[in-house]
Amino acid sequence: MEFLSDIELYYTLPARVKANTAVIEGEEFKHISRVMRHQIGDTIYFTTGMGIIYYGEILSIEKELLTVSVIKHHIYKNNFSNIIFCLPKLKHPDRLEFALEKCTELGITRFVVHNSLRAISKGEKLERWNKILLTAMKQSLRSFIPVIEAITDYKDLIKLPGEKLIFDQNAKQSIDELILNQEKNYYFIFGPEGGLSEEELNEAGSKNIFKIAENRLRSETAVIKCASIITHKALREV
Amino acid sequence: MEFLSDIELYYTLPARVKANTAVIEGEEFKHISRVMRHQIGDTIYFTTGMGIIYYGEILSIEKELLTVSVIKHHIYKNNFSNIIFCLPKLKHPDRLEFALEKCTELGITRFVVHNSLRAISKGEKLERWNKILLTAMKQSLRSFIPVIEAITDYKDLIKLPGEKLIFDQNAKQSIDELILNQEKNYYFIFGPEGGLSEEELNEAGSKNIFKIAENRLRSETAVIKCASIITHKALREV
Repeated sequence: MEFLSDIELYYTLPARVKANTAVIEGEEFKHISRVMRHQIGDTIYFTTGMGIIYYGEILSIEKELLTVSVIKHHIYKNNFSNIIFCLPKLKHPDRLEFALEKCTELGITRFVVHNSLRAISKGEKLERWNKILLTAMKQSLRSFIPVIEAITDYKDLIKLPGEKLIFDQNAKQSIDELILNQEKNYYFIFGPEGGLSEEELNEAGSKNIFKIAENRLRSETAVIKCASIITHKALREV
Repeated sequence: MEFLSDIELYYTLPARVKANTAVIEGEEFKHISRVMRHQIGDTIYFTTGMGIIYYGEILSIEKELLTVSVIKHHIYKNNFSNIIFCLPKLKHPDRLEFALEKCTELGITRFVVHNSLRAISKGEKLERWNKILLTAMKQSLRSFIPVIEAITDYKDLIKLPGEKLIFDQNAKQSIDELILNQEKNYYFIFGPEGGLSEEELNEAGSKNIFKIAENRLRSETAVIKCASIITHKALREV
């Protein structure tokens, strides 16, 4: 069960899972009962987004909810719980959304959307972003529901407790020189089109600026490449 | 000049570059003269997509074209000329287009779009794809214009001369075990939603099947992650 493929993964709230049974309602209920037309006795996989995937049998289907027995479950470890990806608002919101989706599939579970100086702000879309993250978690058969918040002032981002790592095309150090410590939080800060301003770069401290390619990348490409690399090889950890 | 940033890169056909001057016309001409409002005496960067970026000064601006002197140029090496990324048609064409754009930014220069069994075909869009590739090349300040072709029959893809590498979630070998030889062509073959069929996997030979993650990835995510990894670290080459 650790390695799943070709299944559908459903979601239910943590409070809906008891010792041996769980209740699924809302959109997920509709998808199971009406779209997938599951019947009593069918088995399904579901998660509460807290690191566990459950396997159970449908016991009853009512008008608005269904009940599932818990036959077995598997507990996963979040290897990237100390990594927070900080993405700028982009001119084209679909590019930010695409980056959020891809990062979730790749294993990133914490996000901040920030307004850096050159970012083009159009308000927070937390509800929409959360939906994208939930869908991507289920699609990629992961069990940690990503957390996202919006930070309006870039200065507030810099004040958060943990190491700030800035990604900038003109940096001298490569991402390959990055060493992560499991005990610390790391904020991976990406700039918008045109990059972070000189002042923003300085605020984060110049020793923590890295490049992730030898050529120019779009903002969302830098984000996705970085997520691909750091989630693939456990970066030399200390 | 090897490492550019914060510039606009323009494109002109190879035949339009002579020893010391070049001519730029069409869309690129309009962008330089009307959108960017460049004047005689301004300097610009341009490429013919053949591995050279030129730097020159605008000598004259006519109604439909402009002439540029060539002040200097830089020759780049294509490290990935032996790598061909073979992408399936996807249900949502924008996801395929996104993958093409990202791969180009990351350095992939050869593409095949194939119709595997489970792919949802909607005809070739070579003109549109070529436009996306050209834009991505300029955007990422690269100098090799990517080449793309469509192959309708998956069997014809397998017959092309060179090593076929298949990426499948259920493979036993990891992409980390992949060793590339600069002298050979490698076809990186990705499946559609639902993966390649058993028969398609067998046709390619079972020793060349690799996975690129421990969980399920969308088709375009697998493509982009693979491009991120192989273009980042020169895979252990022999």
